[in-house]
Formats: sequence, C-alpha cells, structure tokens
Amino acid sequence: MQFSSESVEALVEQLTKLPTIGRKTAQRLASFILKMPRAEVVEIAEALIAVKDRVRECSICSNVTDRDPCQICRAPRRDRSTICVVEEANDVHAIERTGEYRGVYHVLGGAISPLSGVGPDDLTIRKLVARIAPDGEIPEELVRENGSANDEETSDDEVHRFIQEHRKTTVEEIILAVNPNVEGDTTAYYISQLIKPLGVSVTRIARGLPIGGDLEYADEATLSRALEGRGQV
Amino acid sequence: MQFSSESVEALVEQLTKLPTIGRKTAQRLASFILKMPRAEVVEIAEALIAVKDRVRECSICSNVTDRDPCQICRAPRRDRSTICVVEEANDVHAIERTGEYRGVYHVLGGAISPLSGVGPDDLTIRKLVARIAPDGEIPEELVRENGSANDEETSDDEVHRFIQEHRKTTVEEIILAVNPNVEGDTTAYYISQLIKPLGVSVTRIARGLPIGGDLEYADEATLSRALEGRGQV
Repeated sequence: MQFSSESVEALVEQLTKLPTIGRKTAQRLASFILKMPRAEVVEIAEALIAVKDRVRECSICSNVTDRDPCQICRAPRRDRSTICVVEEANDVHAIERTGEYRGVYHVLGGAISPLSGVGPDDLTIRKLVARIAPDGEIPEELVRENGSANDEETSDDEVHRFIQEHRKTTVEEIILAVNPNVEGDTTAYYISQLIKPLGVSVTRIARGLPIGGDLEYADEATLSRALEGRGQV
Repeated sequence: MQFSSESVEALVEQLTKLPTIGRKTAQRLASFILKMPRAEVVEIAEALIAVKDRVRECSICSNVTDRDPCQICRAPRRDRSTICVVEEANDVHAIERTGEYRGVYHVLGGAISPLSGVGPDDLTIRKLVARIAPDGEIPEELVRENGSANDEETSDDEVHRFIQEHRKTTVEEIILAVNPNVEGDTTAYYISQLIKPLGVSVTRIARGLPIGGDLEYADEATLSRALEGRGQV
C-alpha cells in the first residue's frame, strides 16, 4: 500500500530521483508541498524549467550562465592573465565566496576518471588550451558549439568579440583548483603536462590541514601532504 | 557573489523553501538538475503542479486522495467499525505499511497545540464526531465543504452515497494513533473526552521501548511509560 493519492505517490517518485533525497525525505517534502500555497509551488516548478531553458555554458570559461559570456568573463576588472581551473560550476561559487580571487575561471565539467569512463575529451581541456595558446586556434569552432543556445541579447558576434578581447591578454598563470583526490590528481597532472610547454606557470592550490581542524584527527594522507608542503614561518 | 547564472540562483532560492533542504543541499540539487535531461525536469515540475491541482481531502476521512472518497474509504472489505485517528496523511501510510490494520482512518490534519495556536476547531475533530454520532448530524455540510474540489468522475451524489454507506456501520472502536508527545497527549485526551460519552471504545496505541531498542539507552519518560504499560507474558 502506498499513499492513497497517486499524484502524491508520483511526486514522491520524482523527488527520489534527486541526490540526497531518499524516500522518507521525499514523503516529508511531499506533505509540505501539499500544504504550500499553489502559487509558491508553481514558482518552484517554473524555476526548475527556467534552469533548463535559460542556463547555458559560457563560451569562454564553460561556467553556467544565463547570458553568454558569463558575468565573470564580461567583467573588465577581472585579471584575465590568471585562470583558475575548477571541476564544477559549484567550485567557482566556492572560490568567489572567499573574496580573495580576482582572476578568471575555467570549468572543466568534471575530472579525468578512467574508472567512470571520463577521458580528457569529455572535459573542456581543449578549450582551456585554446585560451592559452597563441591566436588562431579553434575559436570559430568554440563559438559555433554554443551558438544555437545563444541568448537574444547576445549575438554570435558579441561572444566572438569577448573571446577576441580575452585573447589579447597573455595568460601568465593557471591555478589548478581541482579536488584533492585521485581523479583531481590525474587531471592536474594531465593539464600541467599539456600546458607547461606553452610557457605558462601552472600551480595547484595547497593541500594540508583544514583551518579549525585537529592534528590528532587528521588522516595520514592529509598529514603527510601537510608535512611535505610545509613553509617558512 | 552568487552563482553566475540568475536562473540557478533563483532555483537554489526556491529549493531552500522546502524543509530539510539547506543552501548547500539546494546547490547540490541545482547542479544535478542542470545535468538532467530537460524531459525529466519537466516531469518533476509537472508532478509538483499535479499535486496541487489533483489532490484533495477525502470527504469521509480527510486523507489526501486524487478521487473523493479515498481508496480506503471506498474499499468494501475494510472494517468500517474501527477508525484509526492519526495526525497526518503520512501516518496513514506508516500504519498501512505494517499490513496489520484492516479498519479505516481519520486524518486530523495536526494536533492540538495552544503554543502554535492550533485549537480543536483547526482539526477535523467535528467531522470525526459526525462519523460516530447517530445519523442526521452535519453530513450535508461536510459534502458541500469539499464539493467544489470534486473530481469529474465523482459526483456529489456519489460522495454522499459513500458517506451514507459508512454511516450504516456502527463505529465500535476509535484507535488514537497520535504522536507520543505533549501535543499528541492533549489531542488524545480531548478526543477521548468527546467520544467516550457516545458509547464508543477509545484506545491509544502503546508507548514503550521501540523494537530493536536498548533499555540502557532509553530515556526516562519512555522507560517509565513502558513499565506502566507492562503486560502479562
């Protein structure tokens, strides 16, 4: 026996498709939704569809955006000579929250993981190389890739203009902010091998004890990495 | 700085309105939704709206249902002389899962809680009394209450016929399956005072140690209730 309402049951089924939501949570959410005003539920439903309809990939950095290129790539005050390479759009958000970083980003769309069948070509690595390499390399192709999804406000020409503008600045440093795990390590190694020959400095964000952490409870891998990466006081 | 996409930001805002979903979880859900096929997202959105448009309250037991009266109230094999009183529709679901109960239900829509401003009139207690009391008491009014929301398949007449059919059976037992907390206790006391004069047996589900629980870790209130409610072996 399930819920006596098929609609509620259908909603519970739909919600359990999402990560972190099990059957119990889905039931709790469904009860809550039953009591919400209809207008608010419509707002949620519309926000869901809007995300699918409006969000696209930035032609320059592959971050999620409503308007191509994204706010960060458009911003004239951003330091375009430093590119921070992250795995997911969420990571951009995390780094922006620190308020410390003034450069631009590049979103890979994941990490190299042979076990999950994710190779370098499934990520935006080629696009990253094109951003660094001297002019004349595959920009046309990149514009066309996202061309069909372009916003009304932004013509292909405008996107192209921004890409050209970015290319005027010579990239000096690539900061690899990939996750500190096997997939991240593999990706960092792959990218550094590819980019170092282009004469660009490639760095990786520090791994060590988290702030507020406790040495006693740190795992061996973190602790040995922290020792290895020790610096002058 | 927030997400570089306003649509994603709007979705995160909408999702955090739901219980158990904080900002971090909402961000994680939004990233997942960004990668889902559009058709699946539309399904979720539609299920949300459907719940608001199709689900109504059963005229008899106030359970959530797509078709009034609900499946359980319609079922001819259910023992209509026993009514299990629960706080929420989710609780019906929980009791049905045991597979032990063959009677019908009554959903109160909450519990009496003076602190939260919930009084007896905010619950379906009057409707419960009408189910038990001899014929002629407020059935018309009850039908009209939900009348406007009726499914095309179910006419007011049909709902009325079911109510009359239920009234043919004399209610013999009211099982109070309210939560074992202050609000539940208050509600149970209120209902029992109201119903006992009508000559109906009023019981409450047992409170004691949960199965698989450990005496050592049980709280004092549960343990003293378990002692008090001890039975012959």
